[in-house]
Amino acid sequence: MPSALSSPLLLQPPITAPTLNLSPLLPLRTLATRRRIATRPFSPFAVPIRATVAIEKETPENERPETFLRSSDDVLSSSSSSSPLSVRARFEKMIRETQDEVCAAIEVADGGGSFKEDVWSRPGGGGGISRVLQDGAVWEKAGVNVSVVYGVMPPEAYRAAKGDVGGNSGAKAGPVPFFAAGISSVLHPKNPFAPTLHFNYRYFETDAPKDAPGAPRQWWFGGGTDLTPAYIFEEDVKHFHTVQKQACDKFDPSFYPRFKKWCDDYFFIKHRGERRGLGGIFFDDLNDYDQEMLLGFSTECSKSVIRAYMPIIERRKDTPFTEEHKAWQQLRRGRYVEFNLVYDRGTTFGLKTGGRIESILVSLPLTARWEYDHVIFSTDPFFFFFFGY
Amino acid sequence: MPSALSSPLLLQPPITAPTLNLSPLLPLRTLATRRRIATRPFSPFAVPIRATVAIEKETPENERPETFLRSSDDVLSSSSSSSPLSVRARFEKMIRETQDEVCAAIEVADGGGSFKEDVWSRPGGGGGISRVLQDGAVWEKAGVNVSVVYGVMPPEAYRAAKGDVGGNSGAKAGPVPFFAAGISSVLHPKNPFAPTLHFNYRYFETDAPKDAPGAPRQWWFGGGTDLTPAYIFEEDVKHFHTVQKQACDKFDPSFYPRFKKWCDDYFFIKHRGERRGLGGIFFDDLNDYDQEMLLGFSTECSKSVIRAYMPIIERRKDTPFTEEHKAWQQLRRGRYVEFNLVYDRGTTFGLKTGGRIESILVSLPLTARWEYDHVIFSTDPFFFFFFGY
Repeated sequence: MPSALSSPLLLQPPITAPTLNLSPLLPLRTLATRRRIATRPFSPFAVPIRATVAIEKETPENERPETFLRSSDDVLSSSSSSSPLSVRARFEKMIRETQDEVCAAIEVADGGGSFKEDVWSRPGGGGGISRVLQDGAVWEKAGVNVSVVYGVMPPEAYRAAKGDVGGNSGAKAGPVPFFAAGISSVLHPKNPFAPTLHFNYRYFETDAPKDAPGAPRQWWFGGGTDLTPAYIFEEDVKHFHTVQKQACDKFDPSFYPRFKKWCDDYFFIKHRGERRGLGGIFFDDLNDYDQEMLLGFSTECSKSVIRAYMPIIERRKDTPFTEEHKAWQQLRRGRYVEFNLVYDRGTTFGLKTGGRIESILVSLPLTARWEYDHVIFSTDPFFFFFFGY
Repeated sequence: MPSALSSPLLLQPPITAPTLNLSPLLPLRTLATRRRIATRPFSPFAVPIRATVAIEKETPENERPETFLRSSDDVLSSSSSSSPLSVRARFEKMIRETQDEVCAAIEVADGGGSFKEDVWSRPGGGGGISRVLQDGAVWEKAGVNVSVVYGVMPPEAYRAAKGDVGGNSGAKAGPVPFFAAGISSVLHPKNPFAPTLHFNYRYFETDAPKDAPGAPRQWWFGGGTDLTPAYIFEEDVKHFHTVQKQACDKFDPSFYPRFKKWCDDYFFIKHRGERRGLGGIFFDDLNDYDQEMLLGFSTECSKSVIRAYMPIIERRKDTPFTEEHKAWQQLRRGRYVEFNLVYDRGTTFGLKTGGRIESILVSLPLTARWEYDHVIFSTDPFFFFFFGY
């Protein structure tokens, strides 16, 4: 360690240069987790956060609560339901079960790493569980997060979401309370031949409007599962899409072709003219089917993740690879970063609204690489592969 | 190399799964460079680019032309000038000289790497020279680009830029031809104690309006130089800012405090509540001073880059470092990527307008890292540093 680092000159909090006011060392955040107690570093670059839309600050929790729902929310919300529990309650239960199952499967397959868990809540209700396995034997970074959010949306956003554009809804509407819950996961393996997986399933519901008795709650489902390999093995792609199709076909034969196209269109890196990966399924703002059916469909998709992904990992995790293979994977990881920071709605929205940054950016790979003007020479092993010779 | 990669199954261009239409292997671009002749890889993820604002596609050139200006553009543009050359011509000359000088200084300091050069032009005039030194002895990635662009802006954008909001300019205005030239550079060293430098100086000018004889051309200068260390050495920061201040003070005593604040405000990673680095100077859309004075000021700033940066590199390039130091640098590089992809105007504008992607994204570091919820323990060597104990 160079001696300059421990020089007293450097250790005075406000680093100053002549006639300058450089930012002093301000605390970024303090975080205590269930499994480890640590303090976040003060960053010399930290200045107070100014978000355009602030949401309540999260509070770390030492225990996972049985539910993040407000106590009034586990009651029956729909008479058509066969369950005594509300859709909110059943969706939360489903995503937490999925989180447990996926994390367990990953820890077994990894055989080395284990998930670190952060639990947090918000004072007005809601909270989340972030689980990250980092630098494991098989995965470089695997994040599986669930979160439950209570918020309030402006009446215009509510009307636009309902498709009630310019409509006259009688009395002047106030802000609309909403509920949102979701599971979100990105799994980046170490082996360049093992693909990255992303999945995300979410449920959004407004409160019943107070000023219009009997008016229904509005609700939407969204989500998807997609695969991003650095190298393409046809049998992997085939297996992955077959599982997605099977899950879709149990509910509606139009789902798979429609949601596959939606996925291709969504995960598109416009400035590169490239798709992020090899697709899967994606849907958003879905409410034009029976609510129970869509809850069942989201559940089926979530439960299919292990079956879709794990056989591919088992086949590829120990494939021998060279430094060139690794470098190519790192370049593809750079593309992943580009998509997520520039285009992904969840990420860009999260960054703007002051959400929990560590949870939002857990989708980024542990490492990535940007080579200028990367060229593949005909002597490279993957030259033949990409040119299809 | 795993045998699957050379399996005939995998080598058929359109990778298909049952009932799927995955994107076929389409060419992304073909590029020939002056110093190396290579072909860009076909990407299996490539689909045709659809940019909202397309600009003319660049053509690779084998030789650097003496100028990228249209032949009509090297004439005198202003009677107040002491030079027979137009501002356009003198600005292009200045940025090309700066490119040569900075690249030469970097090659000497690096002692190992050398710059690769790409020259390109556009059919309607303009072009550029990209120079990148990658994986050198001192720099991981050093990019120094100049470019000259001829384009056309919508009349509304022109009026807004002039501050002529809602003004009545008589005859209905058509699109306004413009000229823009700039030098842009990001230098990422390998040693975690050696800071990243960014500088960019640009000149923008519209053509004289054809429908208003005698009306002047509009012009603006912009630019700045800023320093982003992973570890802070007060003497480095002091030296760097002192050079910026000296350059500014030669022209106007208000420049340094004003442009220093502008820099701090601009290079701010809102979602992190952090500044990207330790500042420097930044200015944009500057036209409220004498044009010759601002040309001189931009020149002085450009010529100060070597004096501001090289002594710091000489002091830090061989500092011994550990894996922890490198990991911290990589995390800070991640922040650099976040700023550039999410906030930087030049980058986000370039991505939207379909500019030369490799030139736009050369600012990204060769490698970066995102650890989930990075914590610094009290046993870490830089714990003390950041807490100021």
